[in-house]
Amino acid sequence: MNAKERGRRRFLKEGAALAGLAAGAIRSASGQTLASEISDVRPQDTRAYGERSRFETTVRTPPGTLSISTPLQDSMGIITPSALHFAAIHYNVPTIDPRQHRLLIHGLVDRPLIFTLEELKRLPSVSRIHFVECGGNTSPRSVVERRGAGADTIHKTHGNTGCSEWTGVPLSLLLQEAGVQKGARWLIAEGADAGKHAMSIPLEKALGDALVAYGQNGEAVRPEQGYPFRLLVPGWVGVRNVKWLRRIKVVEQPFMTKHETTSYVSLYPKLDGKTRWFQFEWGPKSVITFPSAGQRLPGRGFYEISGLAWSGGGTIRRVEVSTDGGRSWKEAQLQEPVLRIAHTRFRFPWNWDGEEAVIQSRCTDDRGEVQPTIDEMAEMWGVKTDFFQTTQNSVILWNIIYPWKVTREGSVLNALFS
Amino acid sequence: MNAKERGRRRFLKEGAALAGLAAGAIRSASGQTLASEISDVRPQDTRAYGERSRFETTVRTPPGTLSISTPLQDSMGIITPSALHFAAIHYNVPTIDPRQHRLLIHGLVDRPLIFTLEELKRLPSVSRIHFVECGGNTSPRSVVERRGAGADTIHKTHGNTGCSEWTGVPLSLLLQEAGVQKGARWLIAEGADAGKHAMSIPLEKALGDALVAYGQNGEAVRPEQGYPFRLLVPGWVGVRNVKWLRRIKVVEQPFMTKHETTSYVSLYPKLDGKTRWFQFEWGPKSVITFPSAGQRLPGRGFYEISGLAWSGGGTIRRVEVSTDGGRSWKEAQLQEPVLRIAHTRFRFPWNWDGEEAVIQSRCTDDRGEVQPTIDEMAEMWGVKTDFFQTTQNSVILWNIIYPWKVTREGSVLNALFS
Repeated sequence: MNAKERGRRRFLKEGAALAGLAAGAIRSASGQTLASEISDVRPQDTRAYGERSRFETTVRTPPGTLSISTPLQDSMGIITPSALHFAAIHYNVPTIDPRQHRLLIHGLVDRPLIFTLEELKRLPSVSRIHFVECGGNTSPRSVVERRGAGADTIHKTHGNTGCSEWTGVPLSLLLQEAGVQKGARWLIAEGADAGKHAMSIPLEKALGDALVAYGQNGEAVRPEQGYPFRLLVPGWVGVRNVKWLRRIKVVEQPFMTKHETTSYVSLYPKLDGKTRWFQFEWGPKSVITFPSAGQRLPGRGFYEISGLAWSGGGTIRRVEVSTDGGRSWKEAQLQEPVLRIAHTRFRFPWNWDGEEAVIQSRCTDDRGEVQPTIDEMAEMWGVKTDFFQTTQNSVILWNIIYPWKVTREGSVLNALFS
Repeated sequence: MNAKERGRRRFLKEGAALAGLAAGAIRSASGQTLASEISDVRPQDTRAYGERSRFETTVRTPPGTLSISTPLQDSMGIITPSALHFAAIHYNVPTIDPRQHRLLIHGLVDRPLIFTLEELKRLPSVSRIHFVECGGNTSPRSVVERRGAGADTIHKTHGNTGCSEWTGVPLSLLLQEAGVQKGARWLIAEGADAGKHAMSIPLEKALGDALVAYGQNGEAVRPEQGYPFRLLVPGWVGVRNVKWLRRIKVVEQPFMTKHETTSYVSLYPKLDGKTRWFQFEWGPKSVITFPSAGQRLPGRGFYEISGLAWSGGGTIRRVEVSTDGGRSWKEAQLQEPVLRIAHTRFRFPWNWDGEEAVIQSRCTDDRGEVQPTIDEMAEMWGVKTDFFQTTQNSVILWNIIYPWKVTREGSVLNALFS
């Protein structure tokens, strides 16, 4: 609260300067009229289930594909509208009648159990605001490929993340009801999609903060998010948050399923051709959403740099912003509430002098882990940095500091490999 | 965090008991199959702007009227989906092209200013999760009228409230840019709807936590909420949060507008026929959303009582639940985050023994103010309690403790005047 108040006062103190700098943005009212082109919707036209204004056009892209991305360039606050939440779809979006759908818990348990949605809803519930992010979001391969297509925007480089208020039953409660037997170490979560997408989850995570979530942003989970319910393993790669959940089998060993052994893995050169499996948790990650690649600044003057920071391992404690290519960094203001394993909105006042500038953000979480540079990432991988510029290797969990370049014309470009 | 963890452990400890009590809810899996009736949506059918499942049918009611209400009986967590957020509409829902719309700030200011939406978006912004509630929500007149119609549900008694993550510009910043002159005490906020809905706002509130909000739950404010932007005076009666905001005039005195003098007032008998004007702030208020009037319990056993609490004056500190008609009260668990002037979700484990029961909640905010009983409300009004059962008087800001009766058949009824 105090930090927030201080932040507010800081802006207010800068207000005088702002009035001059934002001359393009604030004009005198003299001689202007109040013309608004208004057509009417009568009260009798109000809708039972509302829609957005027809003047709003931001959408997920590209629709009709396996991977539709959140338009982060238009994001506000920390909640991702469910209608704009990214979805990575491996097979299909099953249309499930919740009255017909069941969740089976079996394997190494004392009492195999089956739940309907209605039965799950009778149990003690929790609501938590968490991000879900595809493991491949921001991966160099996708960035290189998409740069090739000449359409380089934050929507494409970072759009496979979203943040919702999820409501559901703690998985630990269901497992306790079933009675986990000795020797159990993992569980296999299986979806009801056409390919029976399955993932191995360590029992420790399942008994920790994992949820079976049936609610998203105050209503039912959306079809593309796993309706009528999904597994939520907060902070872990999206692919492990099994959608359309229908089966949990408690077992001794992971099952080495398709998507944990042949995709969503990292092919490390220093591992001599071997892949690294079972990488679970997102490290601290942040990105400036405005101004970001694909946008345009109308001219010099005041801008509020705004972005999102998150960490799969905890709570964001600090975000710094550089507007000079990483030579100097200043602390950004964090918008409350700052929540565990959730998108956190940061803001930073900036007076653009009209010269070329490289802007970027870096965050630190409450474990003290700092978002890495691409050079630090290369070092971890045992490669030179330019390896990432050409690799076709499978790569997941890319959380590097991401630079945007503002040209003198005001165009904002991806500056990662420039 | 600690409170949350403790709450979790409490449920887990009760898990063993729960297994027995929820016998109706948890069945053995022996001999059951995994039959799901699944039809497919192929990836190429994924939508640019998503929709909910066709099996989800909860809606605002009654559509096509001046007042469409949030279906609180189906609410989860604290966020109200924008598509289900209540709207009280006084004239019409104007269809506004944001490129044509302007906000004028004039009157007792040094520099009259006009802003476009784009210009507002360039200024320093904030995001805050706040409820908005119609001043007439839960008023005895509406309750009595609606009881008469024989359809008595929480949707009708409490549905004119909603909670969103709002994003916008602090009004204080705009007023500072304009330069408020000496002698200014109020401002008049005017909307672009057909009737030019206008409200007088004390300058102190305008310079406090008021916002000009263009964002709602991560996207543009919905048309019925004031697209492209609205005034937000957190914690104050909904009618003062002027939608489709187009003009702010800084003045010396309130304007005594239609909706602050002839409606949204309280007609107090002890004031001898006079009405009380300029009542602004919601007191502490809470209601059990499940089980609530209009719902039905399938049988005795474990239920999680769940509800919402909020206060226009601050943060909810405590919610108590009674399941014996108010003889005894026990503390409910608050779901984090617990935010200032926001809906707060509470939960309370309950084993229904199958006998008639009256359940209700009462909350306390961080100023120590406690939600009143109807008798306390009557005392404040200088009337006997049954006055409220028949009055046709205009009444606003009703925040009384609200009882639901569970019959032996499991029906849940409004028990206010029973």
